[in-house]
Amino acid sequence: MRASKYLTATVKETPADAVVISHKLMLRAGMIRKVASGLYTWLPLGLRVLQKVEKIIREEMNRAGAHEVLMPCVQPAELWKESGRWDEMGPLMLHLKDRHERDFVFGPTHEEVITDLVRNEITSYKQLPINFYQIQTKFRDEFRPRFGVMRTREFIMKDAYSFHIDAQSLQQEYDNMYATYCRIFDRLGLDYRPVLADTGAIGGNASHEFQVLAESGEDYIAFSDSSDYAANIELAEAIMPESEREPAKQELTLVDTPDAKTIAQLVDQFDLPIEKTVKTLVVEADESVEGGLIALIIRGDHELNELKAEKLAKVKSPLTMADENSIRAVVGAGPGSLGPLNLPIPFIVDRTVTKMSDFGAGANIEDKHYFGINWGRDLEYTDVADIRNIVEGDPSPCGSGKILIKKGIEVGHVFQLGDKYSKSMNATVLDQNGKAQTLSMGCYGIGVTRIVAAAIEQNHDENGIVWPEPMTPFHIGIVPLNAHKSPEVMETAEQIYQQLTDAGFDVYLDDRDKKTSPGVKFADMELIGIPHRLVISDKGLEEGIVEYKHRSNAEKENISVTDVVAKLKDTIVL
Amino acid sequence: MRASKYLTATVKETPADAVVISHKLMLRAGMIRKVASGLYTWLPLGLRVLQKVEKIIREEMNRAGAHEVLMPCVQPAELWKESGRWDEMGPLMLHLKDRHERDFVFGPTHEEVITDLVRNEITSYKQLPINFYQIQTKFRDEFRPRFGVMRTREFIMKDAYSFHIDAQSLQQEYDNMYATYCRIFDRLGLDYRPVLADTGAIGGNASHEFQVLAESGEDYIAFSDSSDYAANIELAEAIMPESEREPAKQELTLVDTPDAKTIAQLVDQFDLPIEKTVKTLVVEADESVEGGLIALIIRGDHELNELKAEKLAKVKSPLTMADENSIRAVVGAGPGSLGPLNLPIPFIVDRTVTKMSDFGAGANIEDKHYFGINWGRDLEYTDVADIRNIVEGDPSPCGSGKILIKKGIEVGHVFQLGDKYSKSMNATVLDQNGKAQTLSMGCYGIGVTRIVAAAIEQNHDENGIVWPEPMTPFHIGIVPLNAHKSPEVMETAEQIYQQLTDAGFDVYLDDRDKKTSPGVKFADMELIGIPHRLVISDKGLEEGIVEYKHRSNAEKENISVTDVVAKLKDTIVL
Repeated sequence: MRASKYLTATVKETPADAVVISHKLMLRAGMIRKVASGLYTWLPLGLRVLQKVEKIIREEMNRAGAHEVLMPCVQPAELWKESGRWDEMGPLMLHLKDRHERDFVFGPTHEEVITDLVRNEITSYKQLPINFYQIQTKFRDEFRPRFGVMRTREFIMKDAYSFHIDAQSLQQEYDNMYATYCRIFDRLGLDYRPVLADTGAIGGNASHEFQVLAESGEDYIAFSDSSDYAANIELAEAIMPESEREPAKQELTLVDTPDAKTIAQLVDQFDLPIEKTVKTLVVEADESVEGGLIALIIRGDHELNELKAEKLAKVKSPLTMADENSIRAVVGAGPGSLGPLNLPIPFIVDRTVTKMSDFGAGANIEDKHYFGINWGRDLEYTDVADIRNIVEGDPSPCGSGKILIKKGIEVGHVFQLGDKYSKSMNATVLDQNGKAQTLSMGCYGIGVTRIVAAAIEQNHDENGIVWPEPMTPFHIGIVPLNAHKSPEVMETAEQIYQQLTDAGFDVYLDDRDKKTSPGVKFADMELIGIPHRLVISDKGLEEGIVEYKHRSNAEKENISVTDVVAKLKDTIVL
Repeated sequence: MRASKYLTATVKETPADAVVISHKLMLRAGMIRKVASGLYTWLPLGLRVLQKVEKIIREEMNRAGAHEVLMPCVQPAELWKESGRWDEMGPLMLHLKDRHERDFVFGPTHEEVITDLVRNEITSYKQLPINFYQIQTKFRDEFRPRFGVMRTREFIMKDAYSFHIDAQSLQQEYDNMYATYCRIFDRLGLDYRPVLADTGAIGGNASHEFQVLAESGEDYIAFSDSSDYAANIELAEAIMPESEREPAKQELTLVDTPDAKTIAQLVDQFDLPIEKTVKTLVVEADESVEGGLIALIIRGDHELNELKAEKLAKVKSPLTMADENSIRAVVGAGPGSLGPLNLPIPFIVDRTVTKMSDFGAGANIEDKHYFGINWGRDLEYTDVADIRNIVEGDPSPCGSGKILIKKGIEVGHVFQLGDKYSKSMNATVLDQNGKAQTLSMGCYGIGVTRIVAAAIEQNHDENGIVWPEPMTPFHIGIVPLNAHKSPEVMETAEQIYQQLTDAGFDVYLDDRDKKTSPGVKFADMELIGIPHRLVISDKGLEEGIVEYKHRSNAEKENISVTDVVAKLKDTIVL
């Protein structure tokens, strides 16, 4: 591509409304432009990257034996009412009415449409297993779209849906897709991890997320430092500490704590180690609990894991924190003075809390805490559960090693759905014995547009993007220096451009006229993130050389004009 | 592709709701399935064809120097209000409200979004001309979607938009796109014609449609039999006949015609040649005409051209036929008894009518006609215009030859928009003198999904589809005969399959088990429309041959097993 005939839409200033680095760099490099909140146009430079990602995904899905289809974006409401998701999805789903006032949705996913297709087309177990996929535009009406194409409303997704006669066949295809996703993200050149995940709103049995590791990630991932265990922190089990509980050493004391409404203030004012405190969080209980409230008790330095908590019996789902008035009405003290001792409502303690001794907690009397609380001596617990987030240093639930925490961006997700959709939509086939069997189903998603942003979050420096080679919009950039003064420079540049293009590389020749200074050209090339740069100058040509630099190396290298094409052919794997 | 691992979704029965042949065959061959009215899922077989069409379009658009982008499907209403199309489009455009109750549309086209992009990104004449295109899903809320993917609500379009400093540059790119479209439809192997067209709702100056010729087409195209003139009948000019008007031979007579309410009845009952009659059609006039009605007079065997009529001064646009009560109130007679003589409202006569003599027409008295009417002697005309459809045998408006009429399916359209959008949206650049200039704009559309249906309308026989080679889902089909009895047959089939696949061909190996009879396999292959078929049998292998047949030839040919791959490589151009 010649820059003079291309929309090089680089911008020097960082746009005001961009927060994360990928959003800033995609705007600055001229990859995307905002049309409205959560709606973007992909400019030629961005689309090149997107299409390379799509190509790799398509090749690997085909190789894995999946069949590409294309379902409509607009889906009839009837199917969503049949599956039960019409009400479940709420305002995240864009509802439409056509000119005849019939209800439709702009599809956020396609489980219903594909299940409807399969129940009509597939009649026998012999046609199974089968896996359909598509690469298609989706819409989710995010309340607060942000971070550019990382969390947009309109985005491109690769979604796949497999159908099976039994759970064993589903597990096989799940493993196949898991391996396929690893190949895809390997080929894209990303640093990622498959991690155990919650199945969330889509429902189902087993699930893994594929997380691109990046500081700006919104997900926290727990790793073992000595096995391949990795799980989303939402899901990672904090196991029961193996250590025995220390025997009680302190007397139980009621202490005035008028200025200690938080754990931090308590620790600060009373020289209490935070590991010797507990937090008491009151939430709404389910209908089995009289009074409607229940307390969750975790160690002072731990965080409540809401997902774990809301799955517990006795706790209402979705998890709802009790308001202060309700708490005061029942307990007689505010949220800053609660604790397990003399608590008039039932409570669930975190596993770690059962091993604590001589600890401090609110006294359920305004502005008072108990210090030196000990289980067995002062009070008993009945319900124990894992209700906290795992933290660094915890033993890994896999039984081997300790936990490390990293941040990640979710770019893929595989699910075993089981019969969630096939049951409600009555999708069956005849088995070997001629008996109708409800289908088992898996689904497998990749956030195609998000991959581009995630790759940049992981691969950039202070000058711009540093593309992994499989995703780069251009492999090679050529800068002819002061070409307006030297026809030979431009001629050589054109020759090399042509030879490299003929060899199958995507080449960017910056032939913009002298009003664009070499400095601007170099800066643009770094910003855009082109891995290989050639500079062709009068002086160099006198010596028969061109200057080569890799985007991620500071050093430059002189290469003979006659060798440069061959050298790049050897270096870059297409 | 092995049939045993593919969704071969052929259907024997013709689906009840399919009218046109392409819709029937696409359903029967398993290319598409209906999700709801005007919404289809493309099955693997159909998507293969669609992707081949997309690839050719993309290659030729890139070769022509256009830049691919991807704009969002969902567009903010503000842009449509700015261009004025928010009200113009009416219920054809799908309106959406997001969760914040803001107005959006599911884009039927993208003039507004691209003009908004260009006015922000392009500031100087030096960045022009530039042409952006995308291949993307559109939505038009057709009142009555029909004919399968020929007239759907959701469809894929290639839309392109070019921007220019002046009309000359626009004309150059228009010519470039015209040539590019010819290359695209040539490469697709379609019998098509570029024809002059009306610019319709999109507005603008010059326009050509690309029409695939087919009996089921909804458009009528007028050709010259001795030049390359071709125009949509909507637009084709019916020129003033060169012949002189015959002198009057008959007396003017008032005749009782109680049973002649139509031209057909009049001709039938009074032995009058239809060329000696006129039709008088009353329509609503614009505000310049007192009384609000005006009559349009055409020869009895001609058809009114509504598009021509509504463009006339004095005629209200859009064209609205007057109702019977209004006509009776003003004229004193019903629609079956109208004529130009003694007509109390103004009228416009078609060019051909001015050359008529001794003709019959309603007398504007109930149940009476005048015969032997002659211009000059009995009455005068003031307004003459071209208001009829051109017909076969008319002289071509190009000045050379006579007109032939054929039916076509519109698959492409190129427009010179001029400043329609750039003016209302204030899209300017600085010219050589640093002065702001309003941009000139062209737009260029291809109905990608419709091409697939149009190709089938043009290429089929009683057994199914006959694909043009560039669009076929599979180049070669292989049927191993009674493979369950002969491992050698299956082995040979697999070897040939592998060699042809390695050579880059898309090959369909029908390895379905013995429950699928050879007859069904042959029928499926014809239905799907695979151009080249190989049959491998025990008997053939004894003689060292396989049987070859082309889809559009009845004859079979025996080819030596050792030669078959080389022969097909020679025959099929990839």
